[in-house]
Amino acid sequence: MLRVTFIGTSASMPTTERGMPAIAIKYESELMLWDCGEGTQRQLMRYKVGYGSVNAIFITHPHLDHYLGMFGLLETLKLSSPAPKPVRVFLPRGMDVEGYPFAKVEKVKAGEILRGRGFSVRAFAVKHCRGSHGFVFQEDEKIKFHEEKAHSLGLQGTLFREIQKNGKVKTGSGEVRLEDVTWRMRGRKIVYAGDCAPGDATTEAAKGADLLIHEATFDSSMKDEASERMHSTAAQAAEVAKAAGVKRLALTHISPRYADTSQLLEEARAIFPESEIAEDGLAIDI
Amino acid sequence: MLRVTFIGTSASMPTTERGMPAIAIKYESELMLWDCGEGTQRQLMRYKVGYGSVNAIFITHPHLDHYLGMFGLLETLKLSSPAPKPVRVFLPRGMDVEGYPFAKVEKVKAGEILRGRGFSVRAFAVKHCRGSHGFVFQEDEKIKFHEEKAHSLGLQGTLFREIQKNGKVKTGSGEVRLEDVTWRMRGRKIVYAGDCAPGDATTEAAKGADLLIHEATFDSSMKDEASERMHSTAAQAAEVAKAAGVKRLALTHISPRYADTSQLLEEARAIFPESEIAEDGLAIDI
Repeated sequence: MLRVTFIGTSASMPTTERGMPAIAIKYESELMLWDCGEGTQRQLMRYKVGYGSVNAIFITHPHLDHYLGMFGLLETLKLSSPAPKPVRVFLPRGMDVEGYPFAKVEKVKAGEILRGRGFSVRAFAVKHCRGSHGFVFQEDEKIKFHEEKAHSLGLQGTLFREIQKNGKVKTGSGEVRLEDVTWRMRGRKIVYAGDCAPGDATTEAAKGADLLIHEATFDSSMKDEASERMHSTAAQAAEVAKAAGVKRLALTHISPRYADTSQLLEEARAIFPESEIAEDGLAIDI
Repeated sequence: MLRVTFIGTSASMPTTERGMPAIAIKYESELMLWDCGEGTQRQLMRYKVGYGSVNAIFITHPHLDHYLGMFGLLETLKLSSPAPKPVRVFLPRGMDVEGYPFAKVEKVKAGEILRGRGFSVRAFAVKHCRGSHGFVFQEDEKIKFHEEKAHSLGLQGTLFREIQKNGKVKTGSGEVRLEDVTWRMRGRKIVYAGDCAPGDATTEAAKGADLLIHEATFDSSMKDEASERMHSTAAQAAEVAKAAGVKRLALTHISPRYADTSQLLEEARAIFPESEIAEDGLAIDI
């Protein structure tokens, strides 16, 4: 299972429709949060994501609207019975959290920051404020056997384990090399750029992603304001998605001025047809 | 207009039904908040209370679940155009807020802490944690004329203003004293005890109140736990309401364990019939 749930999709302040930024990534038994704005714990309950099983929290940048809810969530996790489970907390430089012994606080810096069972998370620097990073969830490659071929070369039983361990094995047909009987299935990939001006770093990080989650605070008529505030327009987000060759684009961090998001959607789809506007509670299975 | 709106009524952590503690008091053009838990700004939007006009925020005690939302709200008010309006912020000792020049931060201590147009707010110490206080909203007394009697004694036109200014006035009927032609209409009174064990201080403060808002974290079977944690049961809150002779009692700060609150309500009504359980969004006009 690999499911992305949009917990909050508003920019700067909430609306009755949209909560503060947070994205939940559920991978097998792992539950990660990317950003954790005010109200996240309640949104997690509302959208039945199971806040109690959060393993890791990642904050993209040190603006209050992206992390205030982390304190509320940690406070609630602290009450867990019989004891809170460990949570890894990845913070941008300049931020800290104290008073939660079950939370292991680490700093976000470019590169791999978490190696999990069957996946990794890495960070890449983006242009917004000091310490801003986007995140890449990358499922590990899996080695798959061409079963018919493997059998025809005499592989059976424990030989499958042996060839994976040693890269080769001897059978009745002679030596069989792992690469002759297997293929590599690439892992699934999800990229979230956080708040940012559009940039090459995001394009590079998002290359071939199954899903790019990009902010779209403004429409194209407000391009100058977007640039000045280091944010993106929907069209700029779509350009990044196109250049990176992602499968689909979800736009989030929608300014409260857009009660109607049809303009944002049109501007994005004109450039990258596989665009959509995330709503609170939207779940995407990858 | 004097309206109390329950913005959040849960204890410790939110539920899908109940947000974190906050109570809005709307008196004429004033809008006050008593406590400001996580998610308050969004709840204010949801219940159409008009978060932009908040004049004053009062925090009962320095537990995160009662004040985290203040930071989110101040952050949003900071974005007000053309400029944020002044907000008075009353904090328990040990707490501070920085970075909001439009917020005037003051410390809560027992006694009158705010004198407004036609009302005052005073604080009283309660038993919970260090620095815990409850609040009393007290509308000023109004002087009302017995109009018939006043006219019969020759009061008319500007003499009404004169007698209010000087306490007496000369008319064709001789000297008329203010107290002979007026009566005092007592002001409306609302009391909120915050988190607390039941206590005489609350009973004293709540004497004759139109509305007592009291926590009811537990039912009677959990009396010991309530006592240990310096909280109250619904029955204990009702005892306070009864002893104070209030008109009505609203129970709030409901533990998430009570999806069904009928037991709490029964236990309270057995002692004080004019009890009710506050739900998020409940508005009471006094």
